[in-house]
Amino acid sequence: MSSYKAPTRDTRFIINDVLKLEGYGHLPGFANASPDIVDAVIEEAGRFAAEVIAPLNASGDAEGCTRAADGSVTTPQGFKAAHAAFREAGWGTLSAPEEFGGQGMPHVLGFVIEEYMSAANQAFAMYPGLTNGAVSALLAKGSPELQAKYLPRMVSNEWLGTMNLTEPQCGTDLGLIRTKAEPQADGSFAVTGTKIFISAGEHDLTDNIIHLVLARLPDAPAGTKGISLFVVPKFLVGDDGSLGARNAVSCGAIEHKMGIHGNATCVMNYDGATGWLVGEENKGLAAMFIMMNAARLGVGIQGLAQAEAAYQNGAAYARDRRQGRALTGPAEPQQSADPLIVHPDVRRMLMDAKAFTEGMRALALWCGLLVDVAHQAAEESERDAADDLVGLLTPVIKGYGTDRGFATAVDMQQIWGGHGYIVENGMEQFVRDARIAMIYEGANGVQAMDLVGRKLALKGGRAIQAFFALVDAECAAAKGNETLVDVATRIEKANGELKAATMWFLQNAMANPNNAGAGATPYMHLTGVVALGLMWLRMAKAASEALASGASDTAFYEAKLTTARYFAERYTPDAGALRRKIEAGAEALMALPAEAFETA
Amino acid sequence: MSSYKAPTRDTRFIINDVLKLEGYGHLPGFANASPDIVDAVIEEAGRFAAEVIAPLNASGDAEGCTRAADGSVTTPQGFKAAHAAFREAGWGTLSAPEEFGGQGMPHVLGFVIEEYMSAANQAFAMYPGLTNGAVSALLAKGSPELQAKYLPRMVSNEWLGTMNLTEPQCGTDLGLIRTKAEPQADGSFAVTGTKIFISAGEHDLTDNIIHLVLARLPDAPAGTKGISLFVVPKFLVGDDGSLGARNAVSCGAIEHKMGIHGNATCVMNYDGATGWLVGEENKGLAAMFIMMNAARLGVGIQGLAQAEAAYQNGAAYARDRRQGRALTGPAEPQQSADPLIVHPDVRRMLMDAKAFTEGMRALALWCGLLVDVAHQAAEESERDAADDLVGLLTPVIKGYGTDRGFATAVDMQQIWGGHGYIVENGMEQFVRDARIAMIYEGANGVQAMDLVGRKLALKGGRAIQAFFALVDAECAAAKGNETLVDVATRIEKANGELKAATMWFLQNAMANPNNAGAGATPYMHLTGVVALGLMWLRMAKAASEALASGASDTAFYEAKLTTARYFAERYTPDAGALRRKIEAGAEALMALPAEAFETA
Repeated sequence: MSSYKAPTRDTRFIINDVLKLEGYGHLPGFANASPDIVDAVIEEAGRFAAEVIAPLNASGDAEGCTRAADGSVTTPQGFKAAHAAFREAGWGTLSAPEEFGGQGMPHVLGFVIEEYMSAANQAFAMYPGLTNGAVSALLAKGSPELQAKYLPRMVSNEWLGTMNLTEPQCGTDLGLIRTKAEPQADGSFAVTGTKIFISAGEHDLTDNIIHLVLARLPDAPAGTKGISLFVVPKFLVGDDGSLGARNAVSCGAIEHKMGIHGNATCVMNYDGATGWLVGEENKGLAAMFIMMNAARLGVGIQGLAQAEAAYQNGAAYARDRRQGRALTGPAEPQQSADPLIVHPDVRRMLMDAKAFTEGMRALALWCGLLVDVAHQAAEESERDAADDLVGLLTPVIKGYGTDRGFATAVDMQQIWGGHGYIVENGMEQFVRDARIAMIYEGANGVQAMDLVGRKLALKGGRAIQAFFALVDAECAAAKGNETLVDVATRIEKANGELKAATMWFLQNAMANPNNAGAGATPYMHLTGVVALGLMWLRMAKAASEALASGASDTAFYEAKLTTARYFAERYTPDAGALRRKIEAGAEALMALPAEAFETA
Repeated sequence: MSSYKAPTRDTRFIINDVLKLEGYGHLPGFANASPDIVDAVIEEAGRFAAEVIAPLNASGDAEGCTRAADGSVTTPQGFKAAHAAFREAGWGTLSAPEEFGGQGMPHVLGFVIEEYMSAANQAFAMYPGLTNGAVSALLAKGSPELQAKYLPRMVSNEWLGTMNLTEPQCGTDLGLIRTKAEPQADGSFAVTGTKIFISAGEHDLTDNIIHLVLARLPDAPAGTKGISLFVVPKFLVGDDGSLGARNAVSCGAIEHKMGIHGNATCVMNYDGATGWLVGEENKGLAAMFIMMNAARLGVGIQGLAQAEAAYQNGAAYARDRRQGRALTGPAEPQQSADPLIVHPDVRRMLMDAKAFTEGMRALALWCGLLVDVAHQAAEESERDAADDLVGLLTPVIKGYGTDRGFATAVDMQQIWGGHGYIVENGMEQFVRDARIAMIYEGANGVQAMDLVGRKLALKGGRAIQAFFALVDAECAAAKGNETLVDVATRIEKANGELKAATMWFLQNAMANPNNAGAGATPYMHLTGVVALGLMWLRMAKAASEALASGASDTAFYEAKLTTARYFAERYTPDAGALRRKIEAGAEALMALPAEAFETA
């Protein structure tokens, strides 16, 4: 069976040595996050994830969720108690505002918790995870009354939240939504329609479930400009906070899925359910995007998390399982065979995983810090600059992070050979669970189009230009350091490929927008390579400084330098290939008539 | 639910226009394979796969195999009747020798059948598929008595066969085998040991099951030089062919797997079971490799087959499902949304799939033809040259074919968005089933080492040099044709990268064999890209000739030219990146101590 240990040493390195969180003490909320508190939170979150949540990962997958004839849903054994422990420990409150019972700690710490919980048990972590998204939307757009009624108990995890977007006829294209909301005399709305793929739509973890639902008002314009957001509680809530009547919302079915069996993915039926408008009429899409952007970063972190969990089990097997001999001669001649880790091709998969997970962790946490800066910095220009980068990096973290996260899980399963295909060993669950992250909260092709079609052009391309400048500056600085010069040279070259690809879009996407669409996914991957390269440069620099200053943990820092070199040698060559694919454009790609895809 | 239609038009194009099978009429067996017979076999096999086998794919996955307390195994509903129909139709006999009841048709046709059956239902197709491997070993190494007793009824599929290699402590490293074979007074052997992961180890499809088992004689030398091969029938067979006593071999358990649920993967217990030696004592590995090489090509074809089946369902969904609008403006403004196929990123996945499946089909069938030439050509030099290429291409077809086959299944699932993650839609089954092909019959890392560590060096590198020359000649010829010159130029460049990578191995692998190991997988993929490039050049040439000669089916041939261009533009850029990864060598990859892979 698989196991999980939170990579707290690596997290502390990123937070303390790379991001230097201590330097942000002037920001609101960061004063509470003193180094000793941060370290304690990281260690305790790691312990909780490993000891309370991880042991339910395989059993939750095997058992799944059960819907009874009355529409009630039972989560796998142990989930209810684990969620009670999660609630009591206050993990849901960490980066929520103090006004609503949160601890007001930086988002970057919230991202750490998300990684650990998702790695330990993605299906479980989704229950509080989706609540975070719902909380964001209510915080940004809810009336003071709605906020007061729902937020404290959602922040505390006494109630959990959901996001209801998808319908049978519409996923990506939310303009096709049909669910209706009829205004009632008392100011509420009667919501009617069917939503599908609703994660955590119904369950037994909490006494109430707060659904955020996209629907149309009777006079709403067609398309995405006619969508409004509603809050629809499972049980109506009195003004005194007491639970009232059961609302007319119910789970019609649980979907049978490839993975994340421990999370109830529901068909939700709204039959004139009572709801309240969140934000303005017909402005639901904007409110939804607040949930969505938070959720997209969360899903990117799921990609990292499944990769990390799979990596740990791949590495453990590679060190333990003996098969064959090293190519350079027996490494342990006294044994009947050498451990798998002597084989270069096994190493290749482990080093690929290590370079990805550690680089991606740095990228995600940096982005978490940028979220904080975008919210809290004193200067508008500083807030805007951070917000630009968050906007640019969100589709990359979601799309590249989950594509590579899945590929890493597949590689780690491969290390186990035939045993990786056997359910009881747990490796195939990582693959099945990681697979969904490439799809939900906007399929990765949608992320790529968000990056290329929207984020690149925003504000005259300010975000990508700022990103180029950051990478250039980091490369220039590193080239003066003998230890870093080779790595910097390769990453600078990859950044050059990204610039060339960006320029190609500028020159060719106006004439034919399909040129942007045809290159969108390669461009997202190319940006991912450069962004991880930037992180590896920063980590290598921090490691080099630590070694120069006589840090005791030399093996840890030397491994960072070696992995940075591996990343530079083995990941950046793809940059040129990706640019050439982008520059191939849309012509051959779009040339065939639809009938050419019919088998004859 | 997913569906399948055999791509008979494409198969006929490859066999008739690209490979020009008619030109091989001088080879034994090929005389029977006249164009009209070949076409009829292709159509009938396609019909059988689509109508009889494919409908059991999803139900077989859902139901799986069941082991009763007495060790007997029941296959999913419908499998027994379908296998009876398969047997009656004589599909197992197609390319088996006439001497043992086969039809003596070319292997290339056998490969067509394997693709169709695997695409329709991989779990089902494995039952007769493994029998083919067992038949090959008995044909090559069995005594006339053993051949006469077993082969006719295995060829006819009255009995099915298995391959018993893996044990709990040994998969890749067969030198660790512990199963024992004690000589008995009557010339038979008592076989004792436990085998795991035995596909089709026990089932209810046939009255008898013929196991080929690797075991050690009492005085055998250690390691792979002490392994012998035995035939161990489930029921002993009298000299008159009658079924006798139940042998002491039984199924101890059915493994719970990620996929191929319809195939019983068994733990097999041998408790002094009666067996007979196949071939010479301690030469079992050589006999096993005969099975294995046939099986590896079969597994590569499984990669193609799952990709093809997934592609058909991805393409159908992309044409049917409406979501969003074309970037260039509404394609079907009278509808509420455009079909997915207007989106370039969806096209990208479809074109990637089309370029892979059609290229891989050509490569597999070319290799099938080379198998025939290697067996049947009159001249030894011609046989040897074909055999060289089969040896070189086998790990590429297995490794590259299944890596890309799996990636294609994942992409096709992606086109379905959230619906692709739902079990009932069938897309996730393609992914789960395709996954095993990267693992069994030698994990793909083992294929890569077979290619780099063995096949490259064999006979002074004759095979790879011949391959280079073939690609160069095809490129040179194509460069005179205006339609083909761009494609040829790009493929020539990719071939140049492959030559450079090969040269790098020559210069660097001797000093440190880990340099070969570190680059093995990228090299296998690079060879795959060039091999598919060679096929696309040949297909483009054939299509261009057909168009020039006024063929009526112009859309088909024009699609070939477009897809060749797409392949050249979108697949060949990886060649340079792969070469650079290879040239990075083993240093950073092997530098870290094993402890660096432990999470702290």
